[in-house]
Amino acid sequence: MELWFTEEHTDYAKFSFKVKKHLYSEKSPFQQVDFIDTYEFGKVLLLDGLVMVTEKDEFIYHDMITHVAMATNPEIKRVLVIGGGDGGTVRELTRYNTIEKIDMVEIDELVVKASREFLPLTSSKLDDERVTLYFEDGIKFVEDKENEYDLIIVDSTDPIGPGEGLFTTEFYKNCYKALSDKGILVNQNESPYYERDAKAMLRATGKLKKIFPIVEVYQFHMPTYPSGHWLFGFASKSLHPIKDFKPEEWKKFNLKTKYYNTEIHVGAFALPTYVKEMIEAGVK
Amino acid sequence: MELWFTEEHTDYAKFSFKVKKHLYSEKSPFQQVDFIDTYEFGKVLLLDGLVMVTEKDEFIYHDMITHVAMATNPEIKRVLVIGGGDGGTVRELTRYNTIEKIDMVEIDELVVKASREFLPLTSSKLDDERVTLYFEDGIKFVEDKENEYDLIIVDSTDPIGPGEGLFTTEFYKNCYKALSDKGILVNQNESPYYERDAKAMLRATGKLKKIFPIVEVYQFHMPTYPSGHWLFGFASKSLHPIKDFKPEEWKKFNLKTKYYNTEIHVGAFALPTYVKEMIEAGVK
Amino acid sequence: MELWFTEEHTDYAKFSFKVKKHLYSEKSPFQQVDFIDTYEFGKVLLLDGLVMVTEKDEFIYHDMITHVAMATNPEIKRVLVIGGGDGGTVRELTRYNTIEKIDMVEIDELVVKASREFLPLTSSKLDDERVTLYFEDGIKFVEDKENEYDLIIVDSTDPIGPGEGLFTTEFYKNCYKALSDKGILVNQNESPYYERDAKAMLRATGKLKKIFPIVEVYQFHMPTYPSGHWLFGFASKSLHPIKDFKPEEWKKFNLKTKYYNTEIHVGAFALPTYVKEMIEAGVK
Amino acid sequence: MELWFTEEHTDYAKFSFKVKKHLYSEKSPFQQVDFIDTYEFGKVLLLDGLVMVTEKDEFIYHDMITHVAMATNPEIKRVLVIGGGDGGTVRELTRYNTIEKIDMVEIDELVVKASREFLPLTSSKLDDERVTLYFEDGIKFVEDKENEYDLIIVDSTDPIGPGEGLFTTEFYKNCYKALSDKGILVNQNESPYYERDAKAMLRATGKLKKIFPIVEVYQFHMPTYPSGHWLFGFASKSLHPIKDFKPEEWKKFNLKTKYYNTEIHVGAFALPTYVKEMIEAGVK
Repeated sequence: MELWFTEEHTDYAKFSFKVKKHLYSEKSPFQQVDFIDTYEFGKVLLLDGLVMVTEKDEFIYHDMITHVAMATNPEIKRVLVIGGGDGGTVRELTRYNTIEKIDMVEIDELVVKASREFLPLTSSKLDDERVTLYFEDGIKFVEDKENEYDLIIVDSTDPIGPGEGLFTTEFYKNCYKALSDKGILVNQNESPYYERDAKAMLRATGKLKKIFPIVEVYQFHMPTYPSGHWLFGFASKSLHPIKDFKPEEWKKFNLKTKYYNTEIHVGAFALPTYVKEMIEAGVK
Repeated sequence: MELWFTEEHTDYAKFSFKVKKHLYSEKSPFQQVDFIDTYEFGKVLLLDGLVMVTEKDEFIYHDMITHVAMATNPEIKRVLVIGGGDGGTVRELTRYNTIEKIDMVEIDELVVKASREFLPLTSSKLDDERVTLYFEDGIKFVEDKENEYDLIIVDSTDPIGPGEGLFTTEFYKNCYKALSDKGILVNQNESPYYERDAKAMLRATGKLKKIFPIVEVYQFHMPTYPSGHWLFGFASKSLHPIKDFKPEEWKKFNLKTKYYNTEIHVGAFALPTYVKEMIEAGVK
Repeated sequence: MELWFTEEHTDYAKFSFKVKKHLYSEKSPFQQVDFIDTYEFGKVLLLDGLVMVTEKDEFIYHDMITHVAMATNPEIKRVLVIGGGDGGTVRELTRYNTIEKIDMVEIDELVVKASREFLPLTSSKLDDERVTLYFEDGIKFVEDKENEYDLIIVDSTDPIGPGEGLFTTEFYKNCYKALSDKGILVNQNESPYYERDAKAMLRATGKLKKIFPIVEVYQFHMPTYPSGHWLFGFASKSLHPIKDFKPEEWKKFNLKTKYYNTEIHVGAFALPTYVKEMIEAGVK
Repeated sequence: MELWFTEEHTDYAKFSFKVKKHLYSEKSPFQQVDFIDTYEFGKVLLLDGLVMVTEKDEFIYHDMITHVAMATNPEIKRVLVIGGGDGGTVRELTRYNTIEKIDMVEIDELVVKASREFLPLTSSKLDDERVTLYFEDGIKFVEDKENEYDLIIVDSTDPIGPGEGLFTTEFYKNCYKALSDKGILVNQNESPYYERDAKAMLRATGKLKKIFPIVEVYQFHMPTYPSGHWLFGFASKSLHPIKDFKPEEWKKFNLKTKYYNTEIHVGAFALPTYVKEMIEAGVK
């Protein structure tokens, strides 16, 4: 049967893939949640009709959202994940025996529930004893935290819908406050290629630069996201992802990874000239 | 009007973009040649229905196919381009005043003719006095060449149709022979992500490794190619793209580039673990 | 979410509609069975990926497959339905109190089971006491029947897959034998518009003409079938659908119908000239 | 090359066909005019992105828009065509030697010019000496006409854009005035199937009923229009399309037609019950 899912990357470009089965469809108070089984990418989680996670390439995203910070500061012990309901970010974090506490704040319990059913690959470690799940608004959650985390990962959707507040100055300020002295913030930071995504990235990066002394952007190849050229932000109170990078210490964790490695750590921060210039110029 | 071009990246994944106008459609003795004008990517050259060049992101491809070799050996004087009928590779090469001779061998004169009309942006330097155009088979062309070039760029289509012979051991051997002692071969080398593309890359890389002492693969973000994760091969008789990299010398050329820079030169060779492992394992 | 079902009407024309939810997907020993919920057409039954029944326009198909024969011979008492697993044809037949017996022979029990769940609108009368369901091969079923039915309705899929045998001369001969003197055969007879459908129609019609003295074709507007121009065959031992048409007697049944009426009965046999000529010429 | 044209029949249903070549694209003061060459339907005229005429099935439309009126009143001598820039309606009219005068009023000269180039099949008779072309607004054109035409054919686009005024009460009143005693108005009257089209049809029919004593609607199978179930309106001062139908006289014209014939003339007025009820109920 010719059943195809289509995501509009822009008004004029769209990506489609063939669906085996529409597994799940539910409207939560926050968003539309769907799971589809596909021929090319395995099971796929969609929020409000946009691809969030696919079985085929989630390893890229989850490698890059966790290991870059961990290799910059291998002493991270307390981690806060905001969003990330599929569990992939937590799964990667639990691989570090040195991490003592992982708080995950996901506004939409339905995403977690459904991911446990349809994406056991990503959600498998949500029951690790170091993990505490909070089903509440991440924005509120960080408001009264002070010096509680060594790493905050904002594993959010796009800055439209429930993810919107996670791209605000106020939220970033509260994250700053919630972080310890060597604290690092890693945030899902859109893409430099299509105009709308680039604007969102520039806005978020501009706001972070007003708050954190160190703000960098790093890239990776994410084939199922628009343009395949995706970015995370790295903001820190004191650690620089390249100058303070500790490849030898990270290697001692002896983790087998499919995308991340210590060369790609450095390569990811080597941005194309047009992206560097765009960030320097900021949003007009 | 809803007129959309679709490229099937695999049997189960396709990329579509909206067409303003179908500008040109002609069948040459070698392939179907089309130009379309699009809303998102400007003018696009299609060969046998596949995206070759778009106005929006050709700069990425052409930066990466030329500057990496030039920054490894800034003394390159004689260059052979095989394929590359749109002219973008030649355009980048002509920016180096130190290059004395550029031979471009394109089997399909129609591609050059039509690109001159519809893609002046890429084809603008084909009349540079150092450039000689040969409309003949690149495979034959290199057969009797010996020690004639410092750099050969294989700017080919996929290994199906007219591009097929440019992925053979015999051709690579003749390239080796045609190169000088410090000679470099750069070849369009598909993608690691989708299965068919990955196999083509592994086959080409395996063949090159039997001929050249130094063979590496480097990557870049090419949003209009399947998966957006694209590769070039770098093979050389004696120069290593990282160990022999001469960033300071390259900077003296004082070229303004939109994608390439000396950090990305290094970053491009930092491959994801799964790609490195795939190349080490070779084709089964 | 942009989830679209597509049916290829020909290699070069396709019809797509937006899917709310993929309700059901199962492979029976005979075919792939799917139900989808759609925005425009309500629930839709697909067999091997082709639209069979939609909530929005099934009334057209089921009106035309039953009432034309019933208004030609209002004394029909014994009916055999071959195929028709969704139950819509039986539903219309049960509205005639004068019909005493309805045998329905559907090769694929799964279609009936799933239709009971997802298409209660069509399957509602399958439990009428006059109805006997046989889950077996209709071709075999009629082999040993003689003078048992006043009406046989071949409510089949296209002549590819499980429906193929229902378009053969042997099957039509057995139907002839199974029918009473005034017996009528009504068969799903494809479309005159697209080449492949027209050929199937011409082949079936040609075969019927060699067996039955009276063979006509009638048309109706079926928007969700390829071209919207669909045909049924009417073959009979002695009754002509126009000459023996009994509008006044049919009106006495006092049935409320949404598509069929006594004017459309006549109009349906008024074929376009190109269709008449095509049938006269037969298959080349 | 996979180049596909798509027409959205509704927000949730779309029809696509494969394009060989985009032949022509021009914006007139009134609308966007495109010609495409397609694999399934030959050359196609698009206005504002909607299918108007295809080489494959234009014969259906043009047969039905002319011959029904001509067979009701074979004495028609003076005809006004409003719209119909492709020339197909005029072509059919010129086949009647008894017609003395054909005025065609097309607001958009570009449509005629381009149709002459790309659709010689339909535009071939625009130079017949009985034909006078007026490139002006049909609404204005009829304002001051009195008793000048025996037949007015409104061969318009949908009631959106330049066609809008051709669906107004005032326009219909002026047509009434412009017609002779036995005058007939035939108008493009949308479709009963999809909601938006049905509403447009009901509005137009309701307006005509307030002006003309005889108003009927007739149908035909038009595969490239939404749902394939299309309608024309027939309004007249005194002639009824069935009661006054003169099949024998029409046959004397000895015209070979591919769709229309004297049985289909009658059959076309046999509407499905749901359409009859819809028209009786009118627009809410």
